Amino acid sequence: MKYELYYWPGIQGRGEFIRLALEEAGADYADVARERGTSAMFKVMEASGTPPFAPPFLKAGKLVIGQTANILFYLGTRHGLAPKAEGPRLWLHQLELTVTDFVLEVHDTHHPLGPSLYYEDQRAAAKKRTEEFWKERVPKHLGYFESLLENSGGAYLTGRRLTYIDLSLFQIVEGLRYAFPKRMKAFERRIPGLIGLHDRIAARANIKVYLESDRRIPFNEDGIFRYYRELDL
Amino acid sequence: MKYELYYWPGIQGRGEFIRLALEEAGADYADVARERGTSAMFKVMEASGTPPFAPPFLKAGKLVIGQTANILFYLGTRHGLAPKAEGPRLWLHQLELTVTDFVLEVHDTHHPLGPSLYYEDQRAAAKKRTEEFWKERVPKHLGYFESLLENSGGAYLTGRRLTYIDLSLFQIVEGLRYAFPKRMKAFERRIPGLIGLHDRIAARANIKVYLESDRRIPFNEDGIFRYYRELDL
Repeated sequence: MKYELYYWPGIQGRGEFIRLALEEAGADYADVARERGTSAMFKVMEASGTPPFAPPFLKAGKLVIGQTANILFYLGTRHGLAPKAEGPRLWLHQLELTVTDFVLEVHDTHHPLGPSLYYEDQRAAAKKRTEEFWKERVPKHLGYFESLLENSGGAYLTGRRLTYIDLSLFQIVEGLRYAFPKRMKAFERRIPGLIGLHDRIAARANIKVYLESDRRIPFNEDGIFRYYRELDL
Repeated sequence: MKYELYYWPGIQGRGEFIRLALEEAGADYADVARERGTSAMFKVMEASGTPPFAPPFLKAGKLVIGQTANILFYLGTRHGLAPKAEGPRLWLHQLELTVTDFVLEVHDTHHPLGPSLYYEDQRAAAKKRTEEFWKERVPKHLGYFESLLENSGGAYLTGRRLTYIDLSLFQIVEGLRYAFPKRMKAFERRIPGLIGLHDRIAARANIKVYLESDRRIPFNEDGIFRYYRELDL
C-alpha cells in the first residue's frame, strides 16, 4: 500500500514526526501537498467522512487518520516500529503523547498569546515564556526521557529495539539545536543519553539518506522550531 | 477488575474525563489520591516500570496507563464506550486527541506564559490570550464538533451509540459555562447540537447520580476551567 501523507508543504512541523517513521520504515508514500499543492490537502479534508481537525493526516487505503501520535500508533505495529502486545503498545503511545505535549510547549515559546497572532505581536510574552520553558519545562521533559533511557536496558528508549519514540526524540534534539543553539549547547551535558540516541538515529541508513535528501525540508521560521536570536541567549 | 484512578484530589482537571467514562460505564474504581492522599500517587509513579510523566493515570491490573486520551482509548472498548473495529476506533481517538488540544488551550487562557508561574504573574497576557481564544479558537474547535454532530446521523457524535467523546464534550460545555459564563451564554446559540448533546448526557442515569454525588468535585480556581471575572466579559 502506498500511503499519502498530507501536511503543510513548507515546514517540517508536526508532519516531520510522521516523515521520519515512514522513512525509517522504508515505506512507500507520497508527500501530497509538496507534490500537488495544498488544494489537494483541503480537498481530502472536506471530502472525508472522518475529516481531521488539522494536518498532518495520513491516508492509508480507505482510512484517513489524523493527529500525529495517532498516526504513529497506526504505523508503528505495521512497520516494526512498535511492539504488538497491548501493554507495551499503550506505553509507547503514552510516551509519544508526552512528546506531543512538549512539542506544543516548544511552539508556545514563540506563540504564547495564541496561534492566530503573529510572533511580532507577542515578542515580550514570548521572551517570558521562553525563560520559563528553559528553566522548568525542558529540564522536566528531557530529564524524564533521559531517565527512561538510563533504565531501558538497551540502546533505545524502550529497550533493545528501535521504536517511533526514538525517532521523535531525535527530532526534538534536532529542533532544539536549531531554535536555541546557545541554550541547547549549554543544556546538552545534562542529557548525554538522549544525545547519544540522537547520534545513533542520525547514523541509521534510511535516516541518513533521508536527511541528505530534498525530502527533508530545512528548519525555518514558519515551523514549530524557530530561531529568533532574542529568544536564545 | 477494580481500577485505580490517580489524579490530583482537589480538582476535576484532566482526571474528570476519565471519571466521567468510569461513571457512565458503572465501572468499579478507586479515586486513590482522594481516598488515600497524593503520597499514594507519587509512590506508584516512582515504583512503576512505566512511570507516567504526570497524572492522570490508571492502574488496570498490572498496567499503568498515562495520558488522558490513552486511558480512554484503553477503557473505551472494554466498557462499550468505543467501537471495536480499528478504523472507527482510531477515528474516535483522533477526536479525543483534538479535545485534548482544546483543553490545553483552555488552560493556557489563564497560563499563557507557562504552567509553572502563578496566574497573578501573567494577568495581562491571560487577557490577550483569552480574547484570541474566544475570537478564533472556540469557534474553530466547537464549530468542528458541531458540524460533525450535524452529520453524525444519530444522537451522538459518531452516530447512534454513545462513546467517550460525547462525555468529553459534555465536560467541555460544563467547563466553559463555569469559566466564562457570559461569553459562553452568548456563544451557545452557535452550537445548538452540542448543547443538546450536553443535556442528554446530563440526563443519563449514571451521570446524573454522579453529578449529584460527592465524587464530582466542584469546579474551582485550581483546575483547568477557572473563573476569573476579568477574563469573562
